[in-house]
Amino acid sequence: MKLYDFKMAPNPQRVNMFLAEKGIEIPTVEINTRERAQFTESFKAVNPISQVPVLELDDGTRISESMAICRYIEDLHPDPALFGGDAKEKALIEMWSRRAEFMGYLSAADMLRNSAPVFEDRGLPGVPGGVPQIAELVERGRNSMARFFALFDDRLGTARFVAGDAFSVADITTFVTVRFAARVEVEPPADCANIARWLGEVESRPSATAV
Amino acid sequence: MKLYDFKMAPNPQRVNMFLAEKGIEIPTVEINTRERAQFTESFKAVNPISQVPVLELDDGTRISESMAICRYIEDLHPDPALFGGDAKEKALIEMWSRRAEFMGYLSAADMLRNSAPVFEDRGLPGVPGGVPQIAELVERGRNSMARFFALFDDRLGTARFVAGDAFSVADITTFVTVRFAARVEVEPPADCANIARWLGEVESRPSATAV
Repeated sequence: MKLYDFKMAPNPQRVNMFLAEKGIEIPTVEINTRERAQFTESFKAVNPISQVPVLELDDGTRISESMAICRYIEDLHPDPALFGGDAKEKALIEMWSRRAEFMGYLSAADMLRNSAPVFEDRGLPGVPGGVPQIAELVERGRNSMARFFALFDDRLGTARFVAGDAFSVADITTFVTVRFAARVEVEPPADCANIARWLGEVESRPSATAV
Repeated sequence: MKLYDFKMAPNPQRVNMFLAEKGIEIPTVEINTRERAQFTESFKAVNPISQVPVLELDDGTRISESMAICRYIEDLHPDPALFGGDAKEKALIEMWSRRAEFMGYLSAADMLRNSAPVFEDRGLPGVPGGVPQIAELVERGRNSMARFFALFDDRLGTARFVAGDAFSVADITTFVTVRFAARVEVEPPADCANIARWLGEVESRPSATAV
């Protein structure tokens, strides 16, 4: 196996933190998307939509999308279970992962991609011809982040981890989202004591260095 | 079990088509989001982010997010497997489902929510105070839909179904996306013969009436 990676980008970081939790190392090929390496013909043969990460199996199969890669790893190395044990646990982890992605991660991405000069004409990822930035998405993203923090602070007031008693892939997506948002200077509000407690706990895990 | 549903909305339709493929019926409670029924206090107790569908279990647990609900159903009723059998199949189904969601479904949603008069001040779902429409998202969405159709037509030239030889949840999300896009008058381009072949096949399944 081989992982097409870009260690400073948040989606690859989700996979890298997941691998660290599993105690697994996979050889990587760094694709520097800041330098447009995802748009070369050779990488488009790996992923036609020019995004990292991609896991390449020994039979040549290429799996893109961070969560598809993590699920594949979970099937091969079930312990510790990061997608849950029984049906209900698995469903709640999926629910919280998706809330973190849709309310949090995508909002932070909207803010960064539609404001940062380095993303000029790159309002969406993976489009070689470019996508104009839309300034109004910055404010919309900021408001979504506020709702995300409120929901997750409330949740973390009644649960140790995002999806329940055990650390899971939902914590990984939430943690990467919090760090990602910090790049556009959006931090959890000062009154989110539960997020602060949880952040301290997640930051103390050795896997946090992947993010 | 009980499903909070809204049969004309695309996310509930994914769950309903999934249930039809499994041959399962669950009692439903219709939450008319056109009439803002998702913002009542009683429904906010069911889902704090005011979105349907939600599956309520007999022990009171509430599972929101369409894919979390479908995965729960799959665990309870594994046949026919719609999330795949072995690790590689499962990973490829997850990959194609997510490509359909991020390139297709979210683009169609952007187009509809940021243009239709009925969604005025509802640019994002689940926000009681409202979210202003952003007109530029319509054009961005249209361009993303064109890339979605090109990628999926290419894919369906080499595979019978979206994720391979077998019908899967990736076909459900793709089918709902194509129907959803038609609401904003975006149709697969005439030269997408593979999508047309696949659409005919999916439309002939009894489960298609859920969409």
